[in-house]
Order: sequence, then structure tokens, then C-alpha cells
Amino acid sequence: MFLSKSHGKVNFTLTFPWYLNQLIGILVLFFFSSTLNAQEKDLPNIVLVYADDLGYGDLGSYGALDFETPNLDQLAADGMRFTNFEVAQAICSASRAGIMTGTYPNRLGMSGALNPHATIGLNPEEETIAELVKKAGDYKTALFGKWHLGHLKPFLPSQQGFDEFVGLPYSNDMWKWTYDMKLATPETHARKASYPELPLMAGDTIFSYVKDLADQAKLTTRYTEESIRFINENRNRPFLLVVPHSMPHVPLAVSEKFKGKSKQGLFGDVLMEIDWSVGEIVRTLEENGLSDNTLVIFTSDNGPWFNFGNHSGSTGGLREGKATSFEGGQRVPCIMKWPAKIPPGTVMNKLASTIDFLPTFAEILGVSLPKNKIDGVSILGLLVNDPKANPRETFNYYYQENSLEAIRKGNWKLVFPHSHRTYEGFEPGVDGVNGPVGQAEIGLSLFDLRRDPGERYDVKESFPEIVKELQDLADEVRQDLGDDLQNVPGKNRRDPGKINQAK
Amino acid sequence: MFLSKSHGKVNFTLTFPWYLNQLIGILVLFFFSSTLNAQEKDLPNIVLVYADDLGYGDLGSYGALDFETPNLDQLAADGMRFTNFEVAQAICSASRAGIMTGTYPNRLGMSGALNPHATIGLNPEEETIAELVKKAGDYKTALFGKWHLGHLKPFLPSQQGFDEFVGLPYSNDMWKWTYDMKLATPETHARKASYPELPLMAGDTIFSYVKDLADQAKLTTRYTEESIRFINENRNRPFLLVVPHSMPHVPLAVSEKFKGKSKQGLFGDVLMEIDWSVGEIVRTLEENGLSDNTLVIFTSDNGPWFNFGNHSGSTGGLREGKATSFEGGQRVPCIMKWPAKIPPGTVMNKLASTIDFLPTFAEILGVSLPKNKIDGVSILGLLVNDPKANPRETFNYYYQENSLEAIRKGNWKLVFPHSHRTYEGFEPGVDGVNGPVGQAEIGLSLFDLRRDPGERYDVKESFPEIVKELQDLADEVRQDLGDDLQNVPGKNRRDPGKINQAK
Repeated sequence: MFLSKSHGKVNFTLTFPWYLNQLIGILVLFFFSSTLNAQEKDLPNIVLVYADDLGYGDLGSYGALDFETPNLDQLAADGMRFTNFEVAQAICSASRAGIMTGTYPNRLGMSGALNPHATIGLNPEEETIAELVKKAGDYKTALFGKWHLGHLKPFLPSQQGFDEFVGLPYSNDMWKWTYDMKLATPETHARKASYPELPLMAGDTIFSYVKDLADQAKLTTRYTEESIRFINENRNRPFLLVVPHSMPHVPLAVSEKFKGKSKQGLFGDVLMEIDWSVGEIVRTLEENGLSDNTLVIFTSDNGPWFNFGNHSGSTGGLREGKATSFEGGQRVPCIMKWPAKIPPGTVMNKLASTIDFLPTFAEILGVSLPKNKIDGVSILGLLVNDPKANPRETFNYYYQENSLEAIRKGNWKLVFPHSHRTYEGFEPGVDGVNGPVGQAEIGLSLFDLRRDPGERYDVKESFPEIVKELQDLADEVRQDLGDDLQNVPGKNRRDPGKINQAK
Repeated sequence: MFLSKSHGKVNFTLTFPWYLNQLIGILVLFFFSSTLNAQEKDLPNIVLVYADDLGYGDLGSYGALDFETPNLDQLAADGMRFTNFEVAQAICSASRAGIMTGTYPNRLGMSGALNPHATIGLNPEEETIAELVKKAGDYKTALFGKWHLGHLKPFLPSQQGFDEFVGLPYSNDMWKWTYDMKLATPETHARKASYPELPLMAGDTIFSYVKDLADQAKLTTRYTEESIRFINENRNRPFLLVVPHSMPHVPLAVSEKFKGKSKQGLFGDVLMEIDWSVGEIVRTLEENGLSDNTLVIFTSDNGPWFNFGNHSGSTGGLREGKATSFEGGQRVPCIMKWPAKIPPGTVMNKLASTIDFLPTFAEILGVSLPKNKIDGVSILGLLVNDPKANPRETFNYYYQENSLEAIRKGNWKLVFPHSHRTYEGFEPGVDGVNGPVGQAEIGLSLFDLRRDPGERYDVKESFPEIVKELQDLADEVRQDLGDDLQNVPGKNRRDPGKINQAK
């Protein structure tokens, strides 16, 4: 070894025989690779489970009646229960686009619920949570359940960062059976009559069809088994596991092991099976010693589809349901458990949304945000229960293609005049059959969600300065995202993936 | 000592000199008296705190926004949070009669909110929770806060089993100030103009008057200080401490230490002071080593008084509020902590009511129920989280003097045609001033409280057999308790205490 000191700097040169150089090279390689392994092991796993059409009142810890969700209740007792958590938009495909990309779905041209004839999908150019986690290390990614962001090949999970996919490309009622379980004909239900058989996919391939309720009854178990296998196989590397359950979206079906288990009929049985599924996933994490450093999230895509009556969920008393921008459609349960960070047994009442998942994951993993503009904010400060954290002050309630139906700042929600679906005043259906829905008009209304989460008491006359503030805020939002209600196009909207543009 | 064995039995006789007999007698006496002391120490303490007009959505663990209730949230994390807990009737005096006696208040001739001119009160012949606990041992009993079961001497807490009382005889708005804090005149507010000054009592004596909002601001602190003193003084014997806070009933007022502490204005500040009060009581129990064997209960007397706008609480989205038999009036938070029995961090969704306190205390203490018929049931099975326990299957929603407005079995609530107060469609008041309320009619309606706790979706057409079952049940109830809506007198109603009958 030769050391020389010049100008205050120490230079050194090491000289070894060739075989020692070789050995050192191997040792250095080993050292760096094991460091890399250790780093990757330290990266948290993320397990994100969401149910379909499960409402704010549908879990035990949120007050559900006559069925039990012990595993989800335990998740809440061990983690954080959100009471003021909004979906990106109160309908399937739009909501899921928000979960995947951290943006309002209307920014990406995603709206409604894509059906089997759709030729669009989530644009593959958008960065999803699956692509994001891969920037942090050698994450393995999987989605087992309902996709609903484009069933054509250019839009499938494989094109959006997921290494594995087993599930349905869209909703479980997008088949030839009507809600009273008769085969649709052009006369009885033209749209359903036009649908192909409901495919069950693995990767980009259809490997089976969901032909009847007996096949539907296998879905929850199937997604769960795939999840358990995936966790076991990837115990030694970081992973992102997304489980979008097809249930409790109608038609409801439950496996034999949960039939009649609740006192609440089929809906309760189905919820208990979803609860079982989460329990199996949590148990598998524990068995593999992964619990401490895994962020487990459970939420829903939107509120209950109320006209299905006793086959629909509960909003816990919030106004309206799915396919409206009232809280009954927008607000859902959200539970997060992550023993390494989240204090157990906490209740989080601050505003957050499914569009905040992606930027939160980015902050947790220390990776850059997508190059395209997003709308979510990191809620890591909420997870660690920092009392000063308040990452989300505002929220935009968009519905339809691009209608800004309401805007929120803090506890104030200003609803703009619009026509909306209403379930009120209509006798809901029974046992899986849909009742009618209506259309209603609402004028400009200001709701104080602190005292009035049910949105029943318009206080715009008492708080004109709040109305003004929210109107000004909405004008800014319209410049960015547009608003069909006011014919504002918006400067920063992007296109969905279109089949004719597909590579 | 002489031992004889005959017919398989051993008889023995002990003979001692007189002074040893004396000594043994003293020792035996000492042994039994110390056993008695030990038994009495083993008897649990009971601390029952209830707020006034605090709604289902007004605690952090129930989703409250922009103010924090950390002590009550901790109570929930350490104990049991009820989500389906009903007051006896959704108005002050009636509700409190139910808490005290374990009966529907209409059974006792108690209704509405007694005012300073009332000549009736809770009948001293009724057995209260304070009288009940004294059957179990040398319980010390106190009530610090709002009584509201008769302000005349024969009806005061001292006549109902309470050793100590400091507080208001009725509501804190029963004074000469109108809600906009002007002195009432016969022209502006004849009723208030007729009221005497609002008295603050100790035992049966008025010792001071609540003359202004500055005096109101001292109430929560005063009740708390009395509670702390009482616990410290009675650490070595079993006690029942009842703390019925005057707040957040309007007029709201808060002490300096909580002024501006919340982001929610005065209402939030007041809630944070009530939370502080509970924290002080819990801390005092801990300091005295009494936590493990003390049952601490926190609840409310009825839902929010909605026309007071931002000075009223939240139902969390439930329908209507105080002074209605909809869930917004009837359902309130309830938290119970009792480390010796209640598993921590549990959520209890099964039906229970404030009228169940008395029989639950009776079962816990092993004492007989009152000789007069009561309506409550022991919910001890729920407290120990026995999954088979379901003590309360039905509930009667009485309002007004004796109107059976609804009846419930399990999750089904059948509402009978009646006229009811409504807050909907009326602009609520601001900053302590009352807005208008209306009167509305509702026809026969069946609500499924599992999916529809907001009581918005009448399903009577779909479930005629449930309607029939609940109608039959109501007919039975009417025979017992009567029903003004159907002019049924009821066989088993008792009289309130009347001043001309007072001893």
C-alpha cells in the first residue's frame, strides 16, 4: 500500500497480486449485492384490497348489522380507520382509474363503467401504482380480481405494470343473465343480450368463463388462493398485491363455506367471505414474517347500488349511493395497517382519497412521481398520525364524463346545480333484482359536512363568504380540468387509451 | 376439643374459658367485617357521564371533524364502542328518566323537558340507579351536572338516592336570556321572560346563580372538579358517580383554557372541554388505582338540536335530530370501559339502550331488580363480548306524552303514521341563534336499518310479513304501555311525582 499526502488530500493506491484482486472483486460484488438485497427486503410490501359497491356502513367497525367482519375489525384495531375517505369518482371504471394513477379519472378521459363493447381503456402511457413501485426496486406485482380499466389487450394489467393477473376484465353482471337470472334476449334486455360470455382471465388469456351463479360463487375464493400463493412465492422480495374483489357487486354469490353464515342473508354471507379473504391474506403475511413491514389497505370503489335493496350495502346514513357525487356514493370505509408506521387503534377523520394512494406509495418508497400531472397528495403524515398533517384540504366531486358536481374545502361542500340519479322515493328491489331509480335536480347548495355529513341542510344563505371562496376555487379547477356543466373544456385533460392507437 | 364420630359424621365441640370466647368473638367479628370490606372493595365503581344534545357523529371515534376528543377516543380504544345505541326518548327529561330507572319514560308519566314552572318530577317511589347500587353495599353516590327530573325539593337527587348533588336542576337555556343573548321580555319571549334566574344547586340548596355566559363557561370545569374530589374522597369504598354535562346544549360556553382550541369554533371547543373532563375523571381513577374495576360509561341524552346550526352537533348522517323518533334523535354514541370485563378496542353493533343501564348494573352487582316493572334488559353479555348474547331484540320509539311513533325488531323499524318535527328544508340558525323548525307527516313506513340507517327507503311493499309481525308486536306493547296515536290507555303506566302528593 502506498500513501501520499499532497495539498491536504490523501491519495492511496492498493496493489495486490492478481488472485487477490479477483477475490476482492468477488467480495465487493457480494457486499454490494447483499446490501441491495437488504435494501430491497426493507422496502415495504403493499397489499391493496378493494371491494365493489361496498358502502360506508358495511363493515363491523363502521356499524354493520347482523353480519360480522372480525378480520377487518381486527385490521382496524391494529391500524387506522378512516372516516372521511373519498373515492375518486362514485362508479367502477372511473374509481379504479383513480386508484391506479393518483389522478381524478376525468383528467385521463376515464368515466362510467366500461362494458364488453368498450374500445377504450386506461391509457398505457399513464403510470400506475404497479409501474411506480418498480422504480423503487425489484417489486413483484400482481392483481387478482376485477380490473375494469379496458378488457382489450393493450389495456390489460400486463400493459400497466402487473406481472400477474387473474380475474375478470370488468363487472360480474356484464354477462347474458338479467338480474332475475333469466337469459337476456334482445326483447328483454338488449344490452345484456349483446354481451359475450363473462371471461375469467389469467394474464392476457381467457382461460375459463363464469357461466352461472355457481361459478360466481368461486370468485372470492379464487382471488384469495392466488393471493396466498403469490405472497408465499414472493416472501423474499418486495411486492405489490392488489385484490379488487368482484363482490358485493350484484349478482351476489357465496361459496358453500359461507352460505347462511350471517343473519343477514346473502349480502351478509358475501361480506363475511370477503372478510375471510382479508383474514387469509393477513394470516399468510404473518406466517411469512412479513406483517410488520407490509402496508395493508382495505377500501371500496364506491357506495352501494341502492336500488338492489337487500342485495346492496349501507351508506351508514349518508345521502344517496353509487353513481352520485353525494357522500353516499363517494365516501367509503378505508382501513390501513402497517405496524412499522401506523399507530394501532387510531381513527383518522381528516380528508383523504383513493387518488392519494399513488403519491403516498411514492413518498414511502422514495421514488419520483409520474411525469404527467397527478391530483393525489401523499398522506404519509396522516399514517404516522402527525397531528399537524392535513395534506388534503380540497376535493373535486366530478361525475358523468366531466361534470364538476361539487367541490369541497375542509368541511364545506358546495354542490353545483345539476341533475343526479336518485334512489329516494323509489321502492328498492329484493333478492338481487333491481328496483327503479329516478332523476332529480339539485340547486346550488352549501353543506357543512362537520354537522351534516348527510347533506340535508343547505346553509348557503348563512355563509355567503364560504360560497364565494368555493366558487372561486371551482373556477380554478375548471381551468385545469374542465367542466361539462359550464362548458369549460379544461387545459390539462389527457386522452384515454384508444384501440385504434394501440401498438 | 372433643371429637366424636357417629354414623359417618364428625361432630366437634370446642370449649374455651370465657375470655377466650370473648377474644374469638372479636376475631370472628373482625374476620367477617374485613371480609365485608374486601367484598365491598371488590364491588365495581360505576362512572356514568352523559352529554346533552351530543349527536351520533360528535366524537372523534364516531367521525367528528375539526375538533379532537383524544380522551374519549382512548376510552373507546380501551373499551367498547356501541354503534346501535338508543336513548330512552329523544328529549331531555324523558331521556334522563329512562337512564335513572331502566324504564321507558312514558311508563312513568315522564315526557318532554320540564321547565322551571313544572310541578311534577320523577316519582320518588321509582327506584333509581343510585338507590339500586345501595342494595349491593355501602355505595357512595353523587350526581354533578344537569338533573332535569324535577327541580322542586321532593324530586331532587337527594330524594332519589344521591348522597351528593352539585349542578343545574334543568337545562342551561331555561333562563331569562333569549338565544341571541338579549333579556327576554313578555313581548320578545314570554316564556323565558317568566323564568326565574338559573340556579346552581348543592344538595337541596340554591347556592349561586348562572347569570351570564361567563358563568355558563364555568359549568364543565365545576362538574369535573366535584367529580375529582368525590373520587379521591371515596377511593376506599364503592361509588356511583353520575356526570350529566350541561353542554353542548345551547347556549354554548367554554372556559378560557379551551377557547379557540378547536378548528371548529365554539362547538368544537366545548366538545374538547367535555373530552378534557372525561380525561380528568379517568386520570383520577388511575391515580387511585381504581381503573381496573371501574365501569366508565360515556353517552348522550339525545341527538343534536339541529336548528341551532353551527352550534349544534352531528347525527353522522342519520335522519332528523332531537325531539324526533328518527335515528338522528334516538341514536347516540356510547362508550364503555371496564378493563376487568370488557375486551379493549371492540365495536358493539347490537342494539342496546340507556334503559338497559339499570338492569345491567343489577346483574353486575347481584342485586334484585326494582319491584315495579321495568323495560331495560341486562347487556352484561354484550360487555363481555359473548357472541351469542343478543339481549335486546325490540325497542319502542315513544315520543310526545305517550305516542308509539315506531317500533323495532332486530334491524327492522316500522314507523307508524304521525306528525313529527322536521329540520329538513329549513335554514338552520348561526352562532347560537335558533333557526325555524317545521312539522311534517309520515305515513306507515318500514325501514331496514341494516342497509338504511338513514331511514330513507320505505320497503313496506316488499316485506308485508315483517310489517305484520311488527304491527302485532306494537299491539302487544300498546296493551302494556298505551299509545296516544291510537287512543289506547295502556294497563301498566304509572304516575309521575306530583307536588301536591309530595310528602
